[in-house]
Amino acid sequence: MDSASGDHTVRSFDVELQRLTDTVVRAGGLVEAQLGDAMQALIRRDSVQAAEVVAGDARVDALEQDIHDHAVRLLALRQPVGEDLRAIVGALKIAGDLERIGDYAANVAKRAIVVNQAPPVRAVTAVPRMARLAQEIVNEVLDAYVERDVERAIAVWRRDEEVDELHTSLFRELVTYMMEDPRNITPCTHLMFIAKNIERIGDHATNIAEIIYYLVLGRPLKDSRPKGGADLHGSTPRPDADGS
Amino acid sequence: MDSASGDHTVRSFDVELQRLTDTVVRAGGLVEAQLGDAMQALIRRDSVQAAEVVAGDARVDALEQDIHDHAVRLLALRQPVGEDLRAIVGALKIAGDLERIGDYAANVAKRAIVVNQAPPVRAVTAVPRMARLAQEIVNEVLDAYVERDVERAIAVWRRDEEVDELHTSLFRELVTYMMEDPRNITPCTHLMFIAKNIERIGDHATNIAEIIYYLVLGRPLKDSRPKGGADLHGSTPRPDADGS
Repeated sequence: MDSASGDHTVRSFDVELQRLTDTVVRAGGLVEAQLGDAMQALIRRDSVQAAEVVAGDARVDALEQDIHDHAVRLLALRQPVGEDLRAIVGALKIAGDLERIGDYAANVAKRAIVVNQAPPVRAVTAVPRMARLAQEIVNEVLDAYVERDVERAIAVWRRDEEVDELHTSLFRELVTYMMEDPRNITPCTHLMFIAKNIERIGDHATNIAEIIYYLVLGRPLKDSRPKGGADLHGSTPRPDADGS
Repeated sequence: MDSASGDHTVRSFDVELQRLTDTVVRAGGLVEAQLGDAMQALIRRDSVQAAEVVAGDARVDALEQDIHDHAVRLLALRQPVGEDLRAIVGALKIAGDLERIGDYAANVAKRAIVVNQAPPVRAVTAVPRMARLAQEIVNEVLDAYVERDVERAIAVWRRDEEVDELHTSLFRELVTYMMEDPRNITPCTHLMFIAKNIERIGDHATNIAEIIYYLVLGRPLKDSRPKGGADLHGSTPRPDADGS
């Protein structure tokens, strides 16, 4: 093995770190595509496409495993400190969040298959609006990661509130439909969970924004995000409060 | 600083690693208590206790931050390899799962406050059964972590299926109540999300089981868990498929 002080080693470490970042970005792109396809499958009532999304989740999982293995290998072999260390730990954590976003996208697709078996429900039009917003946010946070752009990461972090607000109003709408006609209950419960999944995707995007902040600046993002409603079907007290 | 080969340094590293493990175990104990209190608040319709659980989540978050900071410091200063490296990365990941379990417990408590405002729903008796099982599983996996007991971790990993099965039958029960009487719709949707939160807690316990396996044996747990139903309100294809 090369000596740890050699120029060659330094350069090859930078190359390795870039490769790790690239794999994270690739996982991010895949997750974005999965989310887009899942929403399309829901809107077009296309169960074949939905099934493809479900099957595609294995690729996201495999990429996360690759990132984990690569990160642990770099930690062991290179013993990085400072920003390099934060970059590796950050990649590890972001990969975890992306894997979850992938899971949520796959679950949206699974539920789309069930929703497609029932007559159309009006609210289906409000769900894609929420999903588009979540997709934009995921896209923004991945750009912020590539650029190591803290300002952009903070903007994403704040923007998640919009997803939460849409989620709150959609939830209320769905309850109304359920009250109107009991036949709506089953599809509407699935739409509720679809909406919840999308809201969680937004939460994971804000997690990633926090990781970028920490990665670049070396301290946690502790600023308080403006808070919205009741924190049940709405905004969360902390952007990473996945359990809300 | 001590030389990396000195006996003193080796011993003090062991002490630090033990301290890290202890903090993870402490976070685990706190999360267990939060989950127990949240369920009690739901069963006894005690909104004061529920509010305490919600407030208590900040302590879990603070512990997770401590673990993260400690782990990154150890990685930077000690540059561990092999099992020590896995122990630190494992602590970091387990802390993340515990933080999520804490979030879910807090969310159960928040929803309990809402449910308490409506007349009692029958299904409330089935939810605690599910919660007790989830608590047992969390307790078991923390024991497995303390003991570095792979067999026990695998047992937890398999047992999560029971939580998933209870979740499936509870979901169906709740839909029936909603169909019977529209006044049940609002409390039942909250109970659905409470049940979903508990199911996710089980998923995070299985994640922790996987981390223990990796931590001890140095390779991922790839064995396939026996699969149950339709993977929507039931078992998940992968124990960490949080999005299901």
